[in-house]
Amino acid sequence: MQIILLSGGSGKRLWPLSNDVRSKQFIKMLKDDRGELESMVMRVYRQIVEAVPYAQVTIATGKKQVSSIKNQLGDRVRICVEPERRDTFPAISLAAAYLKDVEGVGEQEPVLVCPVDPYVEAEYFQVMKRLGELAAEGEADLFLMGMEPTYPSEKYGYIIPGSNDPVSFVRAFREKPDLETAKHYLDQGALWNGGVFACKLEYLLEKAHQQMDFATYKDLYNNYSKAPKISFDYAVVEKEANVRVLRYAGEWKDLGTWNTFTEAMGGNTLGKVVMDETCYNTNVINELNIPILCMGCKDMVIAASGDGVLISDKGQSSYIKPFVDKMEQQVMYAEKSWGSFTVLDVQEESLVIRIVLLPGHSLYYHSHEHRDEVWTVMSGKGRVILDGEERSVGPGDVITMPAGCKHTVFAETELKINEVQLGRDITVEDKVKYEL
Amino acid sequence: MQIILLSGGSGKRLWPLSNDVRSKQFIKMLKDDRGELESMVMRVYRQIVEAVPYAQVTIATGKKQVSSIKNQLGDRVRICVEPERRDTFPAISLAAAYLKDVEGVGEQEPVLVCPVDPYVEAEYFQVMKRLGELAAEGEADLFLMGMEPTYPSEKYGYIIPGSNDPVSFVRAFREKPDLETAKHYLDQGALWNGGVFACKLEYLLEKAHQQMDFATYKDLYNNYSKAPKISFDYAVVEKEANVRVLRYAGEWKDLGTWNTFTEAMGGNTLGKVVMDETCYNTNVINELNIPILCMGCKDMVIAASGDGVLISDKGQSSYIKPFVDKMEQQVMYAEKSWGSFTVLDVQEESLVIRIVLLPGHSLYYHSHEHRDEVWTVMSGKGRVILDGEERSVGPGDVITMPAGCKHTVFAETELKINEVQLGRDITVEDKVKYEL
Repeated sequence: MQIILLSGGSGKRLWPLSNDVRSKQFIKMLKDDRGELESMVMRVYRQIVEAVPYAQVTIATGKKQVSSIKNQLGDRVRICVEPERRDTFPAISLAAAYLKDVEGVGEQEPVLVCPVDPYVEAEYFQVMKRLGELAAEGEADLFLMGMEPTYPSEKYGYIIPGSNDPVSFVRAFREKPDLETAKHYLDQGALWNGGVFACKLEYLLEKAHQQMDFATYKDLYNNYSKAPKISFDYAVVEKEANVRVLRYAGEWKDLGTWNTFTEAMGGNTLGKVVMDETCYNTNVINELNIPILCMGCKDMVIAASGDGVLISDKGQSSYIKPFVDKMEQQVMYAEKSWGSFTVLDVQEESLVIRIVLLPGHSLYYHSHEHRDEVWTVMSGKGRVILDGEERSVGPGDVITMPAGCKHTVFAETELKINEVQLGRDITVEDKVKYEL
Repeated sequence: MQIILLSGGSGKRLWPLSNDVRSKQFIKMLKDDRGELESMVMRVYRQIVEAVPYAQVTIATGKKQVSSIKNQLGDRVRICVEPERRDTFPAISLAAAYLKDVEGVGEQEPVLVCPVDPYVEAEYFQVMKRLGELAAEGEADLFLMGMEPTYPSEKYGYIIPGSNDPVSFVRAFREKPDLETAKHYLDQGALWNGGVFACKLEYLLEKAHQQMDFATYKDLYNNYSKAPKISFDYAVVEKEANVRVLRYAGEWKDLGTWNTFTEAMGGNTLGKVVMDETCYNTNVINELNIPILCMGCKDMVIAASGDGVLISDKGQSSYIKPFVDKMEQQVMYAEKSWGSFTVLDVQEESLVIRIVLLPGHSLYYHSHEHRDEVWTVMSGKGRVILDGEERSVGPGDVITMPAGCKHTVFAETELKINEVQLGRDITVEDKVKYEL
């Protein structure tokens, strides 16, 4: 069985832990069974493997998330990279074309499509597995998961099933309703549409070719900017006559706001945090290496990272987005395929960064036009190449790279490097890459 | 007129802005008439100069505060350094001996003694000036300032005056009372004892010699550890028969807690802070270079520095001390006579520090036994001495100092240096100083 996980979103609502390069699904603040921290992506992948060990997972996502996915899941998943972000219909179509043309998946194989970040119980994945089996049997073209609603929500689309049976045909789809209409739907036994469905690969390809003009995966990839910005629900699901729905009655949460996110946290605090005994219903996540002391905090969420500090009443925290939109600041921390960088000091004509390079990884071979750089190796062993000359480096070694000097470093063991950048116009754009 | 300012206290109550090396009186978060930030020490000194331009100020303090005083007041004040902290009677006695023996002040000159950090109006210093004039005239031995109380406080000692005249003899002194007794004192027209008094220098010396066995300033300094731990009020003032009190009726605050401190702040925020419109009666001081976003914060004080972040209900903030006592952490930022240092990164066997060296200043000539160091000059010009060899340095220059290498740097213009320390046992104690 093929599983396509849709991984989107820049996640400004969870600032300062999420930013342009770190989406909410990669924040490690849940706990697995052994008490180890895991992200939403790691949790969902773990749950899939537990429920459907033979599943082959492909993550459909944008360029910015590739590093985080590789760091957190390694090479166990395939990644189908969208050239730009559009909507779920082109994203799913591209992934379908990728499975056929690149991975050679047969058109009769069942494919399951699901968001990468639902916070759910194991039962969810059992329902998912059953969806895939039904799709393989082929009694209908499309099988959806319907969430049994716990309240008349205005946030979700609704599926009106034809019966109360575990598997039912679908009478109708409904857009996000107002409260009164939602109550009316609940009386009719309606289910929430959770964006999970299964079908055969050929069905996805057929729908894609009907609505977009392309021959192969490469073709669709190259012309992706012309693909319609339309959701799969709207383009396909709601128009499909031959569709069935399966029920899921367990916990189902979108951890997209601080309120829901903190409910799922393993414990009230993460990182260096001291709370006095008068604090109440307060969650603190501290990624800084200095302590946070909380006294008399009630119903609050507090989050600190290299990007900033949020101190908010829990109710108020859902209005965060416009404030973060205005913030527009330098990314102070980023996970990369090769490790991570952290901005330590910002001065007028210099910048200090900590680079962590994972064993076996290297930077691009590159140079800068307008800045000099100095590396001091803090720990680890590796090899540096400067304008074609290679040398071994270890703790205490200093490497100076004037503007124009081509350089890279390869880590034999984990390397920690203190990098000082010097110049008048320090920008991330000032970078020329070379082949080695 | 001589003025002795008593500067004490490690100021844990204002953590994380105050720490072992930065007392509360040196935190720059008040605003002067031109809107410039100033500390309590800077404010009091400015007010003294405005009221008594001919006053000669001496600050009696411990070693740890010398750098901060020099940075904030320069060479305009004399500093009398106590070899260790005891109490106000030995501290005032040492300062009196210092004035006579080191500065050659005449014994008939009036001396005014006052804490370094009262938050008061200009009128306070007019009363102070008048105290000094009365001491010079010599009608009594000792002249005190009595604060007109605004409520029956249990926090202050009381002076019971003989009359309601502007200058009155003192009927009695009273220790800090309970609430009922305080109310009773107020009915009698009692005044708060604010620790401000004036007398002739000979009076201070006479009292010092009566209770301590010493000949000269040097003598008292060398035997300071044997001086009694006793307050001047207790050792002298409360036993004195020939004493007068002058009234002061203006604003008088001790900015020793977050509650009183934030009341005196110039504005609700300092540093990079965004507050949404639902925040109320909240003060935020941010010394970090990342933004703090506050949403729905009510009656709170928030303070962030390189040492940590405090997030507290204002009422609760007065119970901070035991939590800070337990914190016991590395000092991440310190003002020095030569500039400042800021810890940027703490790793297992390395430490990254930003050093700012003021023009004309240099570090001690020193070496380390157990760590190597690497300097990368970020900005400014100066001269480095390495094992006796001198060279000029500027932006981008790298200086490597293996363990044992004697080194110093002299700043011609303000120097910013990135220092990487490398070794297994990095401690502030690992330092050998040399003469140049």
